[in-house]
Amino acid sequence: MSRFLSTEAACLAPYTPGEQPTDAQYIKLNTNESPFSPSPRVVKALSRAEVLKLNLYSDPTCGVLTDAIAARYGLRRENVLAANGSDEVLAFAFRAFCGQGRGVAYADITYGFYKAQSALFGLEATVVPLREDFTLRVEDYLNFPGTVVIANPNAPTGIALPRTDIQRLVESNPDRVVIVDEAYVDFGAESCVPMILRYENLLVTQTMSKSRSLAGGRVGFALGSPELISALNRVKYSFNPYNVNRLSLIAGAAAMEDEDYFRDSIAAIEKNRAWTTRELEALGFTVLPSSANFILAKSDRMSGETLYRTLKENGILVRWWADQPRIRDYIRVTIGSAEQMAALVDEIARLLDM
Amino acid sequence: MSRFLSTEAACLAPYTPGEQPTDAQYIKLNTNESPFSPSPRVVKALSRAEVLKLNLYSDPTCGVLTDAIAARYGLRRENVLAANGSDEVLAFAFRAFCGQGRGVAYADITYGFYKAQSALFGLEATVVPLREDFTLRVEDYLNFPGTVVIANPNAPTGIALPRTDIQRLVESNPDRVVIVDEAYVDFGAESCVPMILRYENLLVTQTMSKSRSLAGGRVGFALGSPELISALNRVKYSFNPYNVNRLSLIAGAAAMEDEDYFRDSIAAIEKNRAWTTRELEALGFTVLPSSANFILAKSDRMSGETLYRTLKENGILVRWWADQPRIRDYIRVTIGSAEQMAALVDEIARLLDM
Repeated sequence: MSRFLSTEAACLAPYTPGEQPTDAQYIKLNTNESPFSPSPRVVKALSRAEVLKLNLYSDPTCGVLTDAIAARYGLRRENVLAANGSDEVLAFAFRAFCGQGRGVAYADITYGFYKAQSALFGLEATVVPLREDFTLRVEDYLNFPGTVVIANPNAPTGIALPRTDIQRLVESNPDRVVIVDEAYVDFGAESCVPMILRYENLLVTQTMSKSRSLAGGRVGFALGSPELISALNRVKYSFNPYNVNRLSLIAGAAAMEDEDYFRDSIAAIEKNRAWTTRELEALGFTVLPSSANFILAKSDRMSGETLYRTLKENGILVRWWADQPRIRDYIRVTIGSAEQMAALVDEIARLLDM
Repeated sequence: MSRFLSTEAACLAPYTPGEQPTDAQYIKLNTNESPFSPSPRVVKALSRAEVLKLNLYSDPTCGVLTDAIAARYGLRRENVLAANGSDEVLAFAFRAFCGQGRGVAYADITYGFYKAQSALFGLEATVVPLREDFTLRVEDYLNFPGTVVIANPNAPTGIALPRTDIQRLVESNPDRVVIVDEAYVDFGAESCVPMILRYENLLVTQTMSKSRSLAGGRVGFALGSPELISALNRVKYSFNPYNVNRLSLIAGAAAMEDEDYFRDSIAAIEKNRAWTTRELEALGFTVLPSSANFILAKSDRMSGETLYRTLKENGILVRWWADQPRIRDYIRVTIGSAEQMAALVDEIARLLDM
């Protein structure tokens, strides 16, 4: 370990993102991107005239973007914070609401970033096991005194929690913040956004990386009471006031305003998810019930590791976690286009036949 | 203070960025932006084809951008970290190199963000007064045991430090990191980049917001030994692995490759700075010697506050700090185009005549 590292930096647990190969052509089903280009409105909005203004700073309040988000969800600007991807939103939230004497709780199988960010801020983390079937038991969190973070639907399982469960959690202790990470909510789970105006202690985070085809634009946001949003802004203005660049502000607003394109994208993914699930089940796979744009699946004839490695050798990238015993038998497959899913199913059928 | 705030978040000292008005047309000389649009190469690089790929994540290693930066400075990719503006670079560096038992030292009059980020990470900050003439005495830092941060040229004074002074500081304790914030170095100060290959403990941070006309693109970077860059990456991958979006990666690389456009921009700013300095001195102003794209100036006939307020009423924005007694008499004026500077000088002459 470098002599220059602070004690705190030595204790970090950096996140390993999915492979982003630049050297070869893969069917890329490993990082839950949308297979569809962004809305034509985004293409139109990113005009030459806007590029020529890149010499000027972006609006630190992200006005254009937060207004578009607020309008879409029937909220006010004071209910919205925009950020450089929802990872940044989560980091701001972890710093704003957790610290000495106020730890954080999350599931054992969930988005890996909660662990990385807990280490970043030196938080005491309580890791709560999911049930055997990977569902979350909300009772496990009701008496936890610190901040609770729940991904809904969960990643990488895809399993959704009913909104009534989160409502119980939010109501059980109004002095505790509940963060609901809705990165994948648009693909079929019940969003908690309608509860925001009723509960001051509920923060919902979302991203435009999945359902709005803007992973490369880095646009995430938080929705919550003005009190919670104001706390997030304290952190943002201590870290990076101009956190969203000019073009992403414009792209995000345009994407949020194109409801038809959004709905069509979702419908296509849901259709392809149903088809892929059926096909894999026909090949003997167990597929967890998914409300996201991915599925977690295991074969009764081939290990997760072999599936991951053999698919990669044959030009298809999926995600597999070597370091997670509970899901080591599974692979996580992003739901792409119909053509991509057909290629995946054909390749898996071929591998199992060999 | 909100009951939801962590103790740490309650202790923050959020930064106040310069005004970014969206409601009126101002001659904007308050946030040190370039008056020139980005290079035509940037405009060309941000093609429709690239926008159509925004559904895919950006390369977390920022390969295209770090390679362009490394090539420009005769370094290797391992010497470069790219980030969402140099504020993010600085935050990563503060976390990587400072913490319990390892504080940070910086000048009393310098970039306000060092204070905000010290508070963000709960660091013990040693604030070292500049001399009466606002020059920095490097001897004050030689025996400081923690991390030293020096803006060179300094902001908001514009005063540059000779490279030999920083060399003394770097050599005086090879176990201590020295961060040289070169946000404005291209406008006339001596860069420490040529020293990077010799000193493992020297980190240089730069930005494309000023000399490369990309403030709205949010592209900053750090240059240093592979050991320091690796430490910054530990923090980055704990905070936000995909920290630079696709379009900014491309824009930054294109801007870095257009050396002619860069030199022409710098030459124009230096010429306008010299002209503005002469004109203000002729009007009785004291202007600090600047190596940056701004000047810090005070009038013998009008207070800094009156200048700031009256100029704003008349459509010209400059920066003034109410909360900084040592520079309360001064205004900071960004060096813009020849037309903008002529408008400023005319307006000031008119105000002083009234």
